[in-house]
Amino acid sequence: MKQDAPITPVSLSDVTISDPFWKTYMELVRSHVIPYQWEALNDRIEGAAPSYCIHNFSVAAGKKKGEFGGFVFQDSDLYKWLEAASYSLMWHPDKELEAKIDSVVDLMGEAQQEDGYLDTYYIINGLENRFTNLRDNHELYCLGHMLEAAVAYHQATGKDKLLAIGCAYADCVAREFGTEPGKRRGYPGHEVAELALVKLYHVTGNEAYLRLASYFIDERGQTPNYFALEEAAHGREKGWNRTLGYGYYQADKPVREQTEAVGHAVRAVYLYSGMADVARETGDETLIKACETLWDDIVSRKMYITGAIGSSEFGEAFTFSYDLPNDTIYGETCAAIGLVFFARRMFELTRDSKYIDVMERAIYNGVISGMSLDGTSFFYVNPLEVDPVACERDFRKSHVKPVRQKWFGCACCPPNLARLLSSIAGYAYETDQTALYMNLFVGGSIRTEIQDQPVSLEVATRYPWEELVTVTVKEAPSASCTLAIRMPGWCRKSIVSVNGTVIHPSGNPSGSADAEGSSDSPNCHMEKGYLYLTRQWNPGDVVELCFSMPVERIQANPRVREDVGKCAVMRGPLVYCLEEADNGSGLSRIYLDHQPDFQVTYQEDLLGGVCAIRAKGRFLSDSGWESAPLYQMYQTPSYEEKELTFIPYYAWANRGLGEMLVWVHL
Amino acid sequence: MKQDAPITPVSLSDVTISDPFWKTYMELVRSHVIPYQWEALNDRIEGAAPSYCIHNFSVAAGKKKGEFGGFVFQDSDLYKWLEAASYSLMWHPDKELEAKIDSVVDLMGEAQQEDGYLDTYYIINGLENRFTNLRDNHELYCLGHMLEAAVAYHQATGKDKLLAIGCAYADCVAREFGTEPGKRRGYPGHEVAELALVKLYHVTGNEAYLRLASYFIDERGQTPNYFALEEAAHGREKGWNRTLGYGYYQADKPVREQTEAVGHAVRAVYLYSGMADVARETGDETLIKACETLWDDIVSRKMYITGAIGSSEFGEAFTFSYDLPNDTIYGETCAAIGLVFFARRMFELTRDSKYIDVMERAIYNGVISGMSLDGTSFFYVNPLEVDPVACERDFRKSHVKPVRQKWFGCACCPPNLARLLSSIAGYAYETDQTALYMNLFVGGSIRTEIQDQPVSLEVATRYPWEELVTVTVKEAPSASCTLAIRMPGWCRKSIVSVNGTVIHPSGNPSGSADAEGSSDSPNCHMEKGYLYLTRQWNPGDVVELCFSMPVERIQANPRVREDVGKCAVMRGPLVYCLEEADNGSGLSRIYLDHQPDFQVTYQEDLLGGVCAIRAKGRFLSDSGWESAPLYQMYQTPSYEEKELTFIPYYAWANRGLGEMLVWVHL
Repeated sequence: MKQDAPITPVSLSDVTISDPFWKTYMELVRSHVIPYQWEALNDRIEGAAPSYCIHNFSVAAGKKKGEFGGFVFQDSDLYKWLEAASYSLMWHPDKELEAKIDSVVDLMGEAQQEDGYLDTYYIINGLENRFTNLRDNHELYCLGHMLEAAVAYHQATGKDKLLAIGCAYADCVAREFGTEPGKRRGYPGHEVAELALVKLYHVTGNEAYLRLASYFIDERGQTPNYFALEEAAHGREKGWNRTLGYGYYQADKPVREQTEAVGHAVRAVYLYSGMADVARETGDETLIKACETLWDDIVSRKMYITGAIGSSEFGEAFTFSYDLPNDTIYGETCAAIGLVFFARRMFELTRDSKYIDVMERAIYNGVISGMSLDGTSFFYVNPLEVDPVACERDFRKSHVKPVRQKWFGCACCPPNLARLLSSIAGYAYETDQTALYMNLFVGGSIRTEIQDQPVSLEVATRYPWEELVTVTVKEAPSASCTLAIRMPGWCRKSIVSVNGTVIHPSGNPSGSADAEGSSDSPNCHMEKGYLYLTRQWNPGDVVELCFSMPVERIQANPRVREDVGKCAVMRGPLVYCLEEADNGSGLSRIYLDHQPDFQVTYQEDLLGGVCAIRAKGRFLSDSGWESAPLYQMYQTPSYEEKELTFIPYYAWANRGLGEMLVWVHL
Repeated sequence: MKQDAPITPVSLSDVTISDPFWKTYMELVRSHVIPYQWEALNDRIEGAAPSYCIHNFSVAAGKKKGEFGGFVFQDSDLYKWLEAASYSLMWHPDKELEAKIDSVVDLMGEAQQEDGYLDTYYIINGLENRFTNLRDNHELYCLGHMLEAAVAYHQATGKDKLLAIGCAYADCVAREFGTEPGKRRGYPGHEVAELALVKLYHVTGNEAYLRLASYFIDERGQTPNYFALEEAAHGREKGWNRTLGYGYYQADKPVREQTEAVGHAVRAVYLYSGMADVARETGDETLIKACETLWDDIVSRKMYITGAIGSSEFGEAFTFSYDLPNDTIYGETCAAIGLVFFARRMFELTRDSKYIDVMERAIYNGVISGMSLDGTSFFYVNPLEVDPVACERDFRKSHVKPVRQKWFGCACCPPNLARLLSSIAGYAYETDQTALYMNLFVGGSIRTEIQDQPVSLEVATRYPWEELVTVTVKEAPSASCTLAIRMPGWCRKSIVSVNGTVIHPSGNPSGSADAEGSSDSPNCHMEKGYLYLTRQWNPGDVVELCFSMPVERIQANPRVREDVGKCAVMRGPLVYCLEEADNGSGLSRIYLDHQPDFQVTYQEDLLGGVCAIRAKGRFLSDSGWESAPLYQMYQTPSYEEKELTFIPYYAWANRGLGEMLVWVHL
């Protein structure tokens, strides 16, 4: 199963995104979010609670007196910021930003202990207790984010210092943990180090990091349970395992025996991502199988239509199959981002487009919904049905905010969004030695190498608003090579042409496709949802993709209790919703017509420019309820005709307080 | 507005219930629940956590060494038991039970302090702190239940000792609280003393008790807030007011300014009952208006179709208008019982049947659902939609139990049910100087006095299963008198005959009615939902009532988000439900046909004998979902035809674990 030709994202330095949809987000992140977060990390945001993040490093480095502030995992805020900033440097070099990073890397170096240990919480509060509470205290979580930042900054600048700091901490951890005699058999309470260590292995070639990642994965959930041993050794109270069991930490059984996605959703998908990474390196079939089983459990039984995951606020966790309440959902932005990570790795493992279909679903819906269109406020929780009164007056919905919040004490989602958005090009394009994979349809110019020869493409598109994607070859290798284009799973009818000659992929995107007509038509076939176009490409060659984007009504599996009798509206990759701003209050009383006569209009002035969808619907009327009883004998309900306006889900809550609804009565 | 002729329930001693429906419950309470609770109060139930209740009294009386055990309001468990036991003595004299009561009354007497104070928590833990935490510590709540027990036992036996104990504690409280200089301006954190003091006033004629009840009601929610003063004086943390405000205690504003039912539902309806009691005595129009407004808020916006109230487990509280989630409901049995109390008092204040309609709804559905058919297990929470998997795996439903529980640490509901069920006759029949009111249709013989002359009736019925109620006069006064029969609000067509002569109440039960035919037809009229039949009655006179009981589909107000597109099934006063035992799993996928062709069958062997309802329905099929995707493009759903079986809601969860559903897709 191990791929002969490893596939990797194109370097962010090699892509210039000009696509208005993504360029806007990237620029928001670069020009607003990253600078704002830097100020936040330095406790310079007036009116906001201090982060203490840089403060903690300064104290740990002995440059300042003081106590540790913030959460036990506060260091990770800096690391996520470093990672996001590094990505932005790749496509927008910025000496000033780079200097800031260098200064903070110097500070990290000063805080780092002789043996490589670096976690400001324990450095400040007592190193004698380090590594004694893996369950709760996130030292290995911080390691993971540090390594991700270190790899990104190295890739962005070629500089080694942060990478060396990361390696030293990883080495320190590797000396501490493992199956060898004298080592502790621990593993992260909050996963992420697993996938990060594989990244570090890729950059350094040092197999010790891959072994450490494998060890963390293999050891997890073994008997006796390490967290239980820790609890016993330190007389510690149970944590989340009191109510949710060790499954909260995905540590209730060995990972290869795990068949259901359980527990804290972010932790889960970070773990599964690490499992997929290790599986890809080792070719371990049992681990691949576990990844596939867990993936299937999520996407077949536990994922919202927006790609959100985590049905319950309690434990920010998965619950059980088909339990997808729309109004009490957790659906953390970070969890959707984690699902994107998992999806990309499963694609890299299998080259199956079904994973990218889910990745696209999450990115265009449940991920970017986390940030306001002006980049200044954020959702942790991404509900599919909101009544602001309920958010205020119903305790079980108090975690659901009807408007995005400025900043959070636990600031995981905003920097997580920042690092994803500033590296979006890597999600769009991947390469191996023979093919360039086009996973997302993001406009811009891409320059990479295939068989060590340069390839340049220009991609022009107004996706997700318009159906056309035009790929123009600017530079090509002398030998034949392959353009592998994902045929989106949401698309029932696509037309692909090469230099004006239409190629007919069959209706089933996993079936085969035939070229038609001219002799210079490429060798082409469909495999696992990809159209593989192989030929000797020449500058000026044009591939046109047209993905038919009618408005579609979507229904949920009948086992999803909350969605019976309802439908959702999608167009292309976008899930749509009703908002009070367009449709008035009482959204749950709205029915979509069976012949809705959808009208799509691109509106430049609406929500930064979106296609709005208008449809025929009806509103369950008060007629017959004049005396306002709570219950009465059945009479045929009366409805008022109503023109409905749907907007893209990701753009909701950008026009003040109001109701919102995705699943509409039909 | 003050009624000239006070109306009161008939004495339980004067009614012999033979009705199989109620007789079964009463006998269960008498022969199982009351003896079991006595054992529980004495910590003699093996495997159950101790109650400590009698233990606490023994310690307080100095007869035993030990610490206080149980909740701060543990005393009230004894008082509710005493009340229930007293009611049962009225219709089933039992010397042994009476002796037990006398012995525990003696114990109470020994525990009572010289100044009348009697609360074992403070007697044991330090009297210096008494009355310093009215917000949380339930001393006045215990007073209330003590007084209710004292009145009941006095009525049952004529004995004075418990009444004297109650009066002494009430006198002690009256010396402590009030607007007079030197008194504390406190009032109960958990209401019930208000209504109990009015009962005590009725029995003793001592107006001081009415004044104390009035004071508690008038003072509640005044500025400065007493609980806030207490918090400040004792450096006490906020309680529920931290999250729900003082509205949790119905103390956020003076009661006459309260227009919305808020906070802890049991406390709320106990308060409103006390307000109605005081209003009736004083004729205070502002208080009557407040009662009516609060009543209307509950029944028009915050009551489940079963009479359950309290939408949220958080604070066991009311939430907001039309927020009636079926699956995360609290709907405490005690709250439905409290609504029954409030309803009866509003009837006594207004003689309007609309209150009894709600009382009947609650009793036949949300109240008796609290107890298993064998009297051994109990629900606190009475949901309208249950998936056992969700109860186990979804934290926000963890308060919803899919099967009744044996006993509870906080044992409020079982004894509350016991006292209601053993006094059901008093809810069925009330009298004033001129009329006998028939509020519920409960079979048996009733003997009371009207204008100081004996009246005896025999009521034969198979209600709620059958439509016919036959009232035979056995003994009648020499002058004319009135039989006031409630025409149930749920009934669209009723036929009333006197000695075979049909009387035609108009379709609108609040309209007028005319007698027809024979010259001995009574003078009759309709008023506020009652049919008043006035004549010189003679032994052997027969009144026949036939309440047409077709199966009805009921719909909820369109503002009830959770019930849009659904209906409930009722027959007579009974709400019906679907259970997995009859209908398989996946109840939320069931649709009731628009032409359901309801078939009603009385089944002796089912659930102790119930009318089951069969109907045509359909089941949202898995057809079209063979590959088990979570989402797919809309196609006309396919359904399997399905015969549905509905059972009475109150009888659910008597056949093991399974799903249950009241509101069905239509």
